[in-house]
Parts: sequence; C-alpha cells; structure tokens
Amino acid sequence: MSRPPARSDRTRSDRRSRPPRRDRSRPVEAPPEEVNRAELPSNPPPSLPEGGLRVVALGGIGEIGRNMTVFEYGGRLLVVDCGVLFPSEDSPGVDLILPDFRAIEDRLDDIDALVLTHGHEDHIGAVPFLLRQRPDLTVVGSRFTLALVAAKCKEHRLTPHLLEVKEGERLHHGAFDCEYFAVNHSIPDALAVAIRTPAGLVLHTGDIKLDQLPLDGRLTDLAGFSRLGDEGVDLFLVDSTNADVPGFVISEREIGPVLDGVFHRADARIIVACFASHVHRVQQVLDAAVVHGRRVCLVGRSMERNMGLAAELGLLHVPDGLLVDLDEAMELPDAELVIVSTGSQGEPLSALARMARGEHRSVRIRSEDTIILASSLIPGNETAVFGVINGLTRLGATVVHQGTAKVHVSGHSPAGELLFLYNAVRPSNVMPVHGEWRHLRSNGRLAVQTGVPEDAVVLAEDGVVVDLVDGRASITGRVEVGRVYVDGLEVGDIGESTLADRLVLGEGGFISISVAVDANTGRAVSAPKLSGRGFSDDPKALDAVLPLVEDELSRTESEGITDTHRIAQAVRRVVGKWVGETYRRRPMIVPTVIAI
Amino acid sequence: MSRPPARSDRTRSDRRSRPPRRDRSRPVEAPPEEVNRAELPSNPPPSLPEGGLRVVALGGIGEIGRNMTVFEYGGRLLVVDCGVLFPSEDSPGVDLILPDFRAIEDRLDDIDALVLTHGHEDHIGAVPFLLRQRPDLTVVGSRFTLALVAAKCKEHRLTPHLLEVKEGERLHHGAFDCEYFAVNHSIPDALAVAIRTPAGLVLHTGDIKLDQLPLDGRLTDLAGFSRLGDEGVDLFLVDSTNADVPGFVISEREIGPVLDGVFHRADARIIVACFASHVHRVQQVLDAAVVHGRRVCLVGRSMERNMGLAAELGLLHVPDGLLVDLDEAMELPDAELVIVSTGSQGEPLSALARMARGEHRSVRIRSEDTIILASSLIPGNETAVFGVINGLTRLGATVVHQGTAKVHVSGHSPAGELLFLYNAVRPSNVMPVHGEWRHLRSNGRLAVQTGVPEDAVVLAEDGVVVDLVDGRASITGRVEVGRVYVDGLEVGDIGESTLADRLVLGEGGFISISVAVDANTGRAVSAPKLSGRGFSDDPKALDAVLPLVEDELSRTESEGITDTHRIAQAVRRVVGKWVGETYRRRPMIVPTVIAI
Repeated sequence: MSRPPARSDRTRSDRRSRPPRRDRSRPVEAPPEEVNRAELPSNPPPSLPEGGLRVVALGGIGEIGRNMTVFEYGGRLLVVDCGVLFPSEDSPGVDLILPDFRAIEDRLDDIDALVLTHGHEDHIGAVPFLLRQRPDLTVVGSRFTLALVAAKCKEHRLTPHLLEVKEGERLHHGAFDCEYFAVNHSIPDALAVAIRTPAGLVLHTGDIKLDQLPLDGRLTDLAGFSRLGDEGVDLFLVDSTNADVPGFVISEREIGPVLDGVFHRADARIIVACFASHVHRVQQVLDAAVVHGRRVCLVGRSMERNMGLAAELGLLHVPDGLLVDLDEAMELPDAELVIVSTGSQGEPLSALARMARGEHRSVRIRSEDTIILASSLIPGNETAVFGVINGLTRLGATVVHQGTAKVHVSGHSPAGELLFLYNAVRPSNVMPVHGEWRHLRSNGRLAVQTGVPEDAVVLAEDGVVVDLVDGRASITGRVEVGRVYVDGLEVGDIGESTLADRLVLGEGGFISISVAVDANTGRAVSAPKLSGRGFSDDPKALDAVLPLVEDELSRTESEGITDTHRIAQAVRRVVGKWVGETYRRRPMIVPTVIAI
Repeated sequence: MSRPPARSDRTRSDRRSRPPRRDRSRPVEAPPEEVNRAELPSNPPPSLPEGGLRVVALGGIGEIGRNMTVFEYGGRLLVVDCGVLFPSEDSPGVDLILPDFRAIEDRLDDIDALVLTHGHEDHIGAVPFLLRQRPDLTVVGSRFTLALVAAKCKEHRLTPHLLEVKEGERLHHGAFDCEYFAVNHSIPDALAVAIRTPAGLVLHTGDIKLDQLPLDGRLTDLAGFSRLGDEGVDLFLVDSTNADVPGFVISEREIGPVLDGVFHRADARIIVACFASHVHRVQQVLDAAVVHGRRVCLVGRSMERNMGLAAELGLLHVPDGLLVDLDEAMELPDAELVIVSTGSQGEPLSALARMARGEHRSVRIRSEDTIILASSLIPGNETAVFGVINGLTRLGATVVHQGTAKVHVSGHSPAGELLFLYNAVRPSNVMPVHGEWRHLRSNGRLAVQTGVPEDAVVLAEDGVVVDLVDGRASITGRVEVGRVYVDGLEVGDIGESTLADRLVLGEGGFISISVAVDANTGRAVSAPKLSGRGFSDDPKALDAVLPLVEDELSRTESEGITDTHRIAQAVRRVVGKWVGETYRRRPMIVPTVIAI
C-alpha cells in the first residue's frame, strides 16, 4: 500500500476518489509478529513543524482510566476528556489518580476547549481539578454528559462554562473544527469527535461499542464514520479496552429476558447492583419490576442522583409511582420490592457491602433474597466482589452474577467490532488509546490486519508525543507525565516515596526506637524505648534486641559520637540486622534520638 | 423420599437392594430456594455419642486453601490433608496461612494417620508444621504425593514416616478402614478416600474432575464410586471449587493441539509458564517441543524439582537430550528453544516477572518472543498477572493466555460433572468442602437437584462440628478455629491486631511525635520531634501542627501531668484531630514521651 501523498498536494476530490485503504495482497489471517517494536523515546519533542498537529495523552494510554488527550495545532490546544483513575494495590490509601497537567500548566490559556466524549468518571472525574486552574474553560459535551459534569462541579463549588453539542453538529472551538458523532456505550449520550485542522482529519472514538440493536435506538454512527473514511481520516484514535477479546458483544437488550427470568423465579426481595451511570441497565430493571408488579427503591447517592438526571432528560422512563424511598420500601411485602443499589464492585462502604456484612441500617439479608450483580468485574476488584458474594451467600441469599448468568455485557467493542470500525474509517494512521499495553498491542494488530501499514500504527503511552505532519503520524519525543494522587483533601503531595513507605509499612509494620542522649557527650540519658506496630502480636517480640541497642549506644558514646543522626543510623543498623536474622522480616526501622 | 433407616437396623444386603436415592417427583430444573438456612452455632459440641463419627474441618471450608479435615471415631482421629492457604490482600506481609491445629493439639497422639489426597500445596503445604508437633505420625499417600512431601520435609529437616498407597487398595489405619480410589486432577496420582467405621461409610473426593480422556489414561474411578453408592455412602464430602461454574471441563489433551498451533506460528523463542506441579501440562509442552524440533529448558526451583521427581517415577516422559540447562539454552538458536517457567500467577520474584521487568539474569525479552501462560488466573492475582502480561507486551512480545486461547483447563469438576458424581454415589448426607460460601451453596444445590434431601446437605465452615450419628449428619457445635500466619521464620506470632495495624499503616502511614519531659514536672525538655512516613512527600507537611503540640505540652505541664502515657494520649489526640481536619487522612499517630 502506497503512502498517501503529502497533505498539501491533496484536494478533497482526489481523497474521495481514492480506493478503500486496504492492502488486499496482505493475508489477514496471520497476525503480524509485532507492531512498532521501537523503544519509546525519552527526549523532549522538537518544536512542532508548521502545519503539523501534535497529540499527547496525559493519561489513559498504558493504563485504563484517567483519559486525557491534548491536541495542539498552530499554538492552540484542544483537550479531549479529563478523567480519573481508581487506584489499585500499588497505590495504597490513595482516593483518586489524576492526569498530570504539568505539560500544559504554563499553557492553560491556549486551550480552546475541553471536549468530553461521555460522562464516565474515567472521562470526566478530573474536570474540577482542571477547572480550578482555568475556571473559564469551555467544557463541551452532550446533554447528559454535561448534566453529570454540572453535578460534579457543584460538589466542588465550581460553575463551569458549558457548551452543549449533539451528534451531527459541527462547530469550531478556536483553531479546531469539531464534528460530533453518536456512539453507543454503557452510558447514554456518548459522542465520538472528529477534529479537523489544516494538518488533517483526526477521529477519536472515545469509549465505543457497536450494539446493532441498542435499547435507545441510538446506534454508533458507522455511516458517519464511513463518510469520514471517504473524506480520508489521517489519524484514528481507537478505544482498546476490549481489543484482546475476540468476537462481539451481545446486545444490551438481551439482558432484559435474563432479568425477567430471575424475577420470575424470585418470590421474595430482589436487590440489583449495577453501575450508577448505567441508565439502560437500570431501565431494564425498572421494566422487569413493572412486569412483575414490584416497586423500585434506588439506593446510593450517585444512583439516586444520576437516575434523577436521566429521568429529567427523558433518557430513563420511570412510570409514575414506581419509585419508593427506603422507608416505604421496608414496609412493602418482599415480593413487591426491587432495590437497585450501588456497590457492584465490592466497595466496602457501599450499601451492598454493608448488607453482605450484616451492617446495613435498614436491609437485613435473608435466605429468601435474590441479589443480582448486573455488572462487570473490574480487574483488581475480584477479592472485594467475591467477598461480598460470599457474605451474601453465607446469609443464605441467592446471588446471580455474570459468572452464572448473562446479566452484564461490556461497553467496549471487542476485536470483531473493532474490525468493523477500521474497515469503515480506513485510516492512514492509527493510535490505540484507552488501554494497558496488552490492549494497545492487540488493537494495533487488528488495524494492521485490516490493511493499515505497520509503521502507521503508533503505539504510545502517557506523555509520548505523536506528531501528525504531512499525513504521517510518528513519535517524536516525550514530555514528563507522572501520576497525581488525591488523598483526602490534598492533591499532589503524595508521591512515589510516600507510596513506597506505605508498601513497606503495610507488609511489615515498623519498629521504633526512641532514646534521649546528652547533647555534649552522646551518653544515653534514658533507657531506649522500643515498640513495634504491625510487627508482632507477641509483647515480648522485641525484648532480645534491647541489650544490643544498649551496647550500640555505649559504643557510639565511647567513640564520642554526639551527632543524633549518626547515632540513629547505628541503632537502625543493629535493629535491622537483628530482625532480619531472627525473624527474616523487613519492618521499617524508625530510630529517634533526642539530644538534651 | 424417605430417610434411610438408622444404621443399626441396616445390613449390607438391604442397602444394596435400595433403589437409587432420587426423588423423581422433585422437578430438577428449578433450583431450591436455599439449602440449610439455619444460623451456624457457636456452642462447643456435646460429647460424641458412642458409635458416632465426628467431622471437623480445621481449614478449607469457607475458603479455598489450607484443606484439613479431622475425622473422629471411638476416641481416635484420622486427618485428611494438611495444606496451606496463600494470603490475599487482607493479610499483608504474610507468607502462608496454616490450618489451626489448636482443636487437636492436646490429642495429637490420638491421630492414627494423616491421609493426603494429592500433592498440591493447599493439601500438603502444612504437613511439616504438623510433623513438628507429632514427628512419628504416619503420612499416607500415593507415590507422587509422597515424593513431593518427602522433598518438602527435607527442606524442613524432617524425616516423615511415609506409607504409600495405591488406588484399589484398602487398609486399616488404626480405627479407620480406608479404601483408595483413583481421581483425575491437575496433578498426577490423586486419590479419593473412602473411610469406613461402624458409624458408616464416608467418601471424600479430595480435589477431583472427570476428564473422560485423561492424558495418562487414569480415570476418576466413577465405577468404584458407584459400587460404594450401591453399598450406601452415609456422608459424601465433595470438592466445591467449581460448583458455581456450569457445564463440563474440556479434556486436558485438547490443549495439545492449541500449543501445537502456537508453536507452529512462532519462529523465535517460546516461553511457557505454568504451575510447577502440572506434570501433564508440561508433558504436552515437551511433546510439542519434540514435534517442532525445539529443546526445553526448565526454569524455577520447584519446576525443576517436581519435573525431576515426575520423570523418575515415570509420570513424565522426557526423551533423552531434550532438556538443556539455562546456559546451554542461551546458546541455542531462538527457533530451537522452549523455556518452561514458573511465575504464571505473576509472583514478583519469579523468573517470568523478572523477564517482564527486564531484570532477568539471562533472558531478555525481545519482540520476536512468544510467551504462553498455560495456567488459570487465581482470583486475587489478576493485577499481578496482568502486570506481567503488560510488561512482556510492552517489550513487544506476543503473549498467549487463557483469555485469548484455550491453553488452560481447570482441575476441578464444574456443576455438570458434579451431577455425575452425585448420581453415582447417591449419598445419604452431603458436606460440600473446598470452597468459599458461594461455592459451597452452589454445590449443596446440585446435591439437592439429584435427590439428596435439603436437610441432609450440611453447609459448614472451618471449625463447625458435623456428627454422623445413626446415618444422619448434623451440625452440633463449633470449635475455635483461627488463622495461623507464617511470616518469615515465625509461626503464629502474627494475629489480627498486627494485621490491622499493617492495614492502617499501609493505607495512611504514620506520624511520630517524640518528646522528652522532666519526670518530676512533666515539662518538655526537648523540642517535640515530628516526622511522618508514608504520609506525605511534602517536607513541610507537618509544620503547622508543631505549635499545637507545643501548646498541648504546656497545657499538660500546667495541669501537673507527669504520666508519660497521659501526655502521649494528649499529643495523639491533638495531632489526630489536626490531621483529620487538615488532610482528611487517618495515619497512625505514634507519640513517644520519654521521661528524664
């Protein structure tokens, strides 16, 4: 397949007349051995050539979450999405992880708009943190997305400048000519965005799937993508989340009959847990409730808020009188109630987890209850989710989940659907986004199988700079991108050193040794105080090291050492060696030497 | 369905003539609403009636791992299995979790034998810890199981009394008449055991599946189980691990062609990771290597040891000259090498994890490499395993795993196979074992579907006492069973309080405040030293609390408080309140007050 001619030589008409961009001579059965084997660079990028477009992800590539991609053209910036990442076990105690804004913090005034593809937390969760730095930024999105953003901003006491767009609309945000396309996903009102600059046409899918019979009839606009393909898409940013999953996702509407069957068999209470933004899933629960003569109680702050917004916007149809509050619900006969709750990921403070532990304020799980986890199991949450299932099961309840019944479908296109996308768009260059490395590489292979040249598939990660110049996308450098942690009220004061300490402390606890010494002689003027936390339940565990510490203090004194730091080091060494040999453990050793 | 007559009234012949124990009037399609809804008791059990059999699991019910079941008849004990549990995130820093021996520690001399069903760590891992307390205990098992036990005991410098048994054999261990049956599982030479006492006939499956075309031709002895069923099985202890998975496991031998296909496509190095005891999986890798002209290097201490034992016992067929050591392997052309490695669960110190991080001594991953994870993904290990896959993928390697190809099958019967077991055995009473609550309850439901009366399905958990008296099994009490943690060299000194501290420290770190005070006046004689670890990267994070601590010390002094404990409490309160309000975090607050 020949490279397309340089941009400046092309006209709209010769683009349209090009044949579909497939290399039919390439056998599509055999996946290529690899895509883009080059090492990623560490150098800062050169200046962007005039007429070029620069793309940098500040989050969301090489990980699933905190999606944020910055586009630069002619000195102006467009940001697509601004989400959070939920922490895993490698960042203990952290509440949220934000994209790293450092690469743009000196250029906040150059941003023409923040475009949000949809309302999931990993796409909008960090918006308030960006708005704190640039309060007048225009935030662009669909109606439901903006409703969720507005609610979120209200909690942060921010008043965002919102600009509502619809699929089919095309408008300029400063230097960027943006066209919006309907996309089907696990939240209503999702959009893909096509970004036109003189550098070329870029299409960003956001999160996407191709349900061909969506519950709301709002299909992913594959026809629109095909039209863009005819025009010539220079760079295609594609959701990679399910790229390593073969085949297709069944339709969301196929969950309805499964729910109906579970409702049919249940003759007592039903509790359904699902994501608080999954309007269509909740709709199907409401529909089943109506059919089976049950009323519905929404539990969980985000569930109540989001479904309220969805109902207001006409995205969720709630028959009059169907909903009851928790107090009313507790008065209903068991067979006339469905509770719809958050907590499907085993979150320990959620209503469902409290029910499983027998600690919920109002709801006591009984053996007649049926609980449906109508949700995915996000990797990393397995222990928590199975803990909740075991707790509910131990109390006798029947638990239905995606491992035992088809009560969940994914919101992301797997391989089979991604091939449809590539074949519709026929892009010149591809940049897989929204995925860990395993997903990105699988997605890249799919692109190559549809005829995209291997060297036109750009596998990047956060901070890697991709320049689209003369119709060719390539990696030109890297900007520094770290993880920005939110813990409690503070943003950014927690870094790798604090997290490393937490990991050490969490694995082995600590042993502290406190002693006062004479400032002039270095002589200990108190007995050393030894204490361990997270080290042992045995109150005598540290008795044997006390004489060793005393000996060491005598030694430092006899050598005339008065520097508290050096004395502390000596004590740390003695205790660390002893504990390693005696227990083969590695607690943190924390000596404190006070000079009097 | 009528209950079987009490044991004393029955003869062998009337048992044989009983019809199969199924209640055909019961519709099997609709699962019963529940099984055994009763609360579990907390009382100690009454004394065992004469002629009764008592069953208590010291581990392995209500959890997956550390399987250990104690049978008592006529004052004598028989122990089946003695395994370890691998810790999850709720027991940080712990190496292993053992069954709790307290319930039998005063009765160790009453044990007639320890019967091991197979050689997996969750069935034999705690044997050395039991033998330390009773070194002359007879350890019964199949040849391969005992070879693994002997190797393990050697590491612990123990010389166990081993008694080898084979399927088809029946012999007395003291009061217990035991018959052994061949069982198919993911390790060779597994056994089920039928235990006969005057109280009745008990069948314990151990871990089991029903591969009907096993690689070694050694079928689970369903015919033998049927014969026991004819005789009348009074209590059936059944592996629950996959009870909530519908259907059947495909045959292990179907993995061979999949491996063959991957080998066929690979033109450079192949690295296969799998469990170090999965002899049949390794056999299929060796077979594929022979076909494709590759030599094989075994990597990892347990892999080398176990496959050496398996080869010695004729369970693994290794053609002469096929194996090479790592140094030779590194000299071979890429297309002529297969590395078989441990590390399939993402263990951070394993060879595979080091390769994924680019830290392995000899093996540098290259983009041409193909890596096969021919293993399950044990819940709780997802983050680690996906981390390894991402690391390998980032380096350009092709990674094949059970999510993308059929390179693993489970070793445990799912629901469809369990139904075969129940229908062969036709037990009077059923006790699901080896599972968390979600598995136990599913397994109990399957038993009921085959006609076992609901009240004859005993859902217990660790420590719950089940008595089989007059042919009826019921829960009669509970003995205390905790978790025994091994951390480093010490067993049992870590308990819930240490683990709770580790969880707090791991989430929030700590803030220490050290101050020396005059023993007589309570006056601070040093400036308070404040320091945080795992709290913040900001060196000034604690500056603002210092004046508050000083104020508090002035207050305690002015109130004449000289007790160091009370002063420490006051300081803790001030710092804890400040950090909660300022940061909304909960580090551990560690005050140390030294009286001079």
